[in-house]
Amino acid sequence: MRTTVGIIGAGPAGLLLARLLRGAGIDTVVLEARDRAYVEQRQRAGVLEQGTVDALRAAGAGARMDREGLRHDGIELRFDRRRHRVDFPALTGGRSVMVYAQTEVCKDLIALQLAEGGPLLFGAEALAVEDADTGRPRVRFRHRGREDVLECDYVAGCDGFRGVSRTAVPAGVGQVFERTYPFAWLGILADVPPSHHELVYARHDRGFALLSMRTPSVSRLYLQVPEGTKPEEWSDADIWRELERRFETDDDWTLRRGPVTRKSVTSMRSHVHEPMRYGRLFLAGDAAHIVPPTGAKGLNLAVGDVVTLARALAHEKETGSAALLDAYSATCLRRVWQAERFSHDMTGLLHRAPDATPFEDRLQLARLERLTASRAAETDLAEAYTGFPLD
Amino acid sequence: MRTTVGIIGAGPAGLLLARLLRGAGIDTVVLEARDRAYVEQRQRAGVLEQGTVDALRAAGAGARMDREGLRHDGIELRFDRRRHRVDFPALTGGRSVMVYAQTEVCKDLIALQLAEGGPLLFGAEALAVEDADTGRPRVRFRHRGREDVLECDYVAGCDGFRGVSRTAVPAGVGQVFERTYPFAWLGILADVPPSHHELVYARHDRGFALLSMRTPSVSRLYLQVPEGTKPEEWSDADIWRELERRFETDDDWTLRRGPVTRKSVTSMRSHVHEPMRYGRLFLAGDAAHIVPPTGAKGLNLAVGDVVTLARALAHEKETGSAALLDAYSATCLRRVWQAERFSHDMTGLLHRAPDATPFEDRLQLARLERLTASRAAETDLAEAYTGFPLD
Repeated sequence: MRTTVGIIGAGPAGLLLARLLRGAGIDTVVLEARDRAYVEQRQRAGVLEQGTVDALRAAGAGARMDREGLRHDGIELRFDRRRHRVDFPALTGGRSVMVYAQTEVCKDLIALQLAEGGPLLFGAEALAVEDADTGRPRVRFRHRGREDVLECDYVAGCDGFRGVSRTAVPAGVGQVFERTYPFAWLGILADVPPSHHELVYARHDRGFALLSMRTPSVSRLYLQVPEGTKPEEWSDADIWRELERRFETDDDWTLRRGPVTRKSVTSMRSHVHEPMRYGRLFLAGDAAHIVPPTGAKGLNLAVGDVVTLARALAHEKETGSAALLDAYSATCLRRVWQAERFSHDMTGLLHRAPDATPFEDRLQLARLERLTASRAAETDLAEAYTGFPLD
Repeated sequence: MRTTVGIIGAGPAGLLLARLLRGAGIDTVVLEARDRAYVEQRQRAGVLEQGTVDALRAAGAGARMDREGLRHDGIELRFDRRRHRVDFPALTGGRSVMVYAQTEVCKDLIALQLAEGGPLLFGAEALAVEDADTGRPRVRFRHRGREDVLECDYVAGCDGFRGVSRTAVPAGVGQVFERTYPFAWLGILADVPPSHHELVYARHDRGFALLSMRTPSVSRLYLQVPEGTKPEEWSDADIWRELERRFETDDDWTLRRGPVTRKSVTSMRSHVHEPMRYGRLFLAGDAAHIVPPTGAKGLNLAVGDVVTLARALAHEKETGSAALLDAYSATCLRRVWQAERFSHDMTGLLHRAPDATPFEDRLQLARLERLTASRAAETDLAEAYTGFPLD
């Protein structure tokens, strides 16, 4: 097989890239190791920045999102039994976010790709990216039991942190920046309307908790748990009891309980690979960088990467100039590091580190107090939460 | 001896407190272990917040400060050979700071106290605060070779981190919050006009450096050095060479050299004792809390404490109500923790920790980039630098 841009991975990054390149008249083939049902059900992020919403609309993939997505104009910070709302539009000149699950973004993009786009192969497992540092990179892959080769002008590695793209960059090329955290998130989906109309980020002496939602009738809730926790260690009753404790307030707010339909543990990690390119292999999304989920930045960074990459590839096609491709990594990394900073700081602001000193505990409360007392500090957070500009 | 408020320590906190209480018609005696010359020459802070300037003026101690002090409307952040000015009045609605050395504040307050105030005993070393938890606290002290006792209604512990007041609080009463840092500041005074008209905070791969000044003809410069460094380990020539490296820019800025008249090392520490009161002993300034010097907050916090304490004592005298005295610690600690947070974060923003990971290095640069890109982030810094409100 042969194409202009071989795309590894049919998550939001790979799918949106294929869609954007199609719009620019550039051929692609998308290889996805899993089957369609898996991709359409894999629970991931659910908060889209303004820039992500705009990019999906511009790609003609925003219709159902605009019908079914929930526009959120703020979040609530909860600590010391108090509630503080951060009003995004008021602080940022009108920006907001959209709650619309990654699964739904993928469904929409898959349907469009199958209807109008180039080849999208499910069950096509990329085995290796070869000759990335030459003019003729190739992706070896296995599909329907036999091995094949995809010959490309460029390869886009959109296959996440555990994908083959990241490992195609030889050790010693570039640099890895990393931080792990001594805690994880135990997340549930529950068939119950969310107990608050916006996301609630709670800092509690017992640990962080997050109230989120997928739809007006499905709640998504998280508890900070020690790294290494297994979902089966927590009964549903224990989870609800612990959520109630961590969300406790001085007013009459209550947490609505409902049947838990899914339970999983997400580990927390900060990770960046610099540069985000090796020859003709371009890394995008989780293949290049991981953020802890606290800032809701993972999906949005991936979208930023592929918007930048699509623009650079289109520019090269139109003008013959590789200038934007050559700037790809540096352009993305500016946003990436701001998102890494924000995600790290939001994580530190709200989680209880098991080795935190009493001094650090007080600093954490002082940071939260500062957010409630200074419009500037609050604006800084609101700007970062609603998203860093795509350029 | 007997007085209403026994004040231990004739630094800016003790001296200003005596002045403020005199204005409220409350008797004081100030005990200072050192002699007058020592107090008037001990090099300490030099940046006064707007609120400190206002408090000194209101106490009738601002005349020479207003003549000789240098109003500063900004600072410069320097990193990656770039220069970024933070414009305080533009960001904070007109607030600024005053560069006027602590030595000069002390000289002014000592002169006023000796001319108009109650007893101020130099060479009077406080040995112990006794019976603080009763209605009749006493300060035992040694003056001119003999021991004496100062009987008081209240004792104000303004004698710094190594003073006797802090140790008068029994172990187990209250809680200590602390952080040490693996670096220190090597500071010099030099007889040369400052090379920049505002303070320059430089983050460099080799470590932090600060350009400051005492007067238009005297520079004050600092280098981050490892904790435990002795001043004599650094020759003047080495200091100037290292300062030049850390302040390097891409433009034609140059560092002016001059004779070094003083050289010392300041260790870095964050420390808070809660509560700031034990019975009738009230801790103020460094006796209750220490900040690393990066945010220039130490003197300003001390002033905030004694303004709060003077107001509370006056209120008690006028109304018989101890409500403000009872609120003293909590009132001060709100400001203290904001200053601790800011000083900690400014320190982390600019210093190179010897054990910093590459990820943390990148975060540091991302924070500095953020300050140059977001008016909100910059405003947050400017608000904190120019000072938290006294109430």
